[in-house]
Amino acid sequence: MFIFEHAYIFYIPYVNIVPMRDIVILGHKAKTNGDFSLNDLPGSAGRMDILCRCVSSALFLSFGMRRDVNVHLLLLGDPDPGKIIRFEGLHLRYLNPDERSSGSLINKALQKDATEQDTRSTPGVWIRRGDLKSLLLEFEGRALFYLREDGRDIREFAREVQDSVFILGDHTGVTEEEEKQLLEAGAQIVSVGPVSLHSNHCITLIHNELDRAESERGASQRYADCQAEE
Amino acid sequence: MFIFEHAYIFYIPYVNIVPMRDIVILGHKAKTNGDFSLNDLPGSAGRMDILCRCVSSALFLSFGMRRDVNVHLLLLGDPDPGKIIRFEGLHLRYLNPDERSSGSLINKALQKDATEQDTRSTPGVWIRRGDLKSLLLEFEGRALFYLREDGRDIREFAREVQDSVFILGDHTGVTEEEEKQLLEAGAQIVSVGPVSLHSNHCITLIHNELDRAESERGASQRYADCQAEE
Repeated sequence: MFIFEHAYIFYIPYVNIVPMRDIVILGHKAKTNGDFSLNDLPGSAGRMDILCRCVSSALFLSFGMRRDVNVHLLLLGDPDPGKIIRFEGLHLRYLNPDERSSGSLINKALQKDATEQDTRSTPGVWIRRGDLKSLLLEFEGRALFYLREDGRDIREFAREVQDSVFILGDHTGVTEEEEKQLLEAGAQIVSVGPVSLHSNHCITLIHNELDRAESERGASQRYADCQAEE
Repeated sequence: MFIFEHAYIFYIPYVNIVPMRDIVILGHKAKTNGDFSLNDLPGSAGRMDILCRCVSSALFLSFGMRRDVNVHLLLLGDPDPGKIIRFEGLHLRYLNPDERSSGSLINKALQKDATEQDTRSTPGVWIRRGDLKSLLLEFEGRALFYLREDGRDIREFAREVQDSVFILGDHTGVTEEEEKQLLEAGAQIVSVGPVSLHSNHCITLIHNELDRAESERGASQRYADCQAEE
């Protein structure tokens, strides 16, 4: 019986067991080659510190990793804009919560020759060429939410949200063209409270609302599954 | 009339206008001299990265600083345990949201000779010798809340909270002796949701609950005041 349970955990793909949470952050200034110093993530790396904090907020629990979360960083800065780095919570290794740690994994990914196809740089971290349009195509059929201060309060409808994708801007927000693409793709505009906050703080608040909703639904089994995977 | 309003804003002490939020973080391993590298905040600085993220989560809004927040870092690591660094949102300068920035201000504070009296290191940052007991004495008469996973859900009572002090542990939690002191000082045990999270994430969630409660109370004037002070 024990052996059967063990096999079940390993051979049924995780994505079929639990709904995923995908989080997209648009880094308009974020450097697109690995030629930056981990000692200057806000400056020479084009506010990469923002993306690093988002990665950490999206993926870390107190004693482990959110295995049901993917983070997609859309890097749009010089010198080679249009790269997407994906952190897959399920397979991720070598990530610590500090900014330098995620900065280092981003840097390693940017050392790879990015093509239209995924290239793995370290376990759970992938890089490819792409833009917002190609990302949105990937999420077709899923519930898209775009964060904006004047959006509908997530607290009103978090209980209905499953298998969701949240899209956030950086310190420069979201351009008109990007907003148009998001709305055409069916994204709903949501907010997380009465005060305008940094993107990483918004991610923490999104998770909390969804955690609470799942807990109310009695989906605490989800976390047991996460632990079993580790 | 304009001149009168201007004078009003500058000469009435801010602390008399709005209730404060104080946040205490216990850093059991945090280095207590300035002999650490900003390139290794998690290692040689004794998980100082945790405290740096807490400072950032406690003080930053999207477009400014929470002027009504004080952060107290209780540093208990080697070589000279028992130092308290206070960040005063009202007077704070030279702080950016990245970990190195708060790490740098902490490092500068630790270069000072700490005594029982406050010594200012940079605008809005103060250091002194002290322990949890002396900190708790300072907060006498205020509403104390101690974060623990099995506490009462903050969402149930955030509307009643004003002029509050929140106390959080680091990655090692809170010792039995510290918990005893907290409970003796009248601290209530609170939680922020169904999942165990990092301290900086908890701070973001506390702020959100209090922001929402204040917004419901129509206290949006508070933020106008904050902006006027800047």
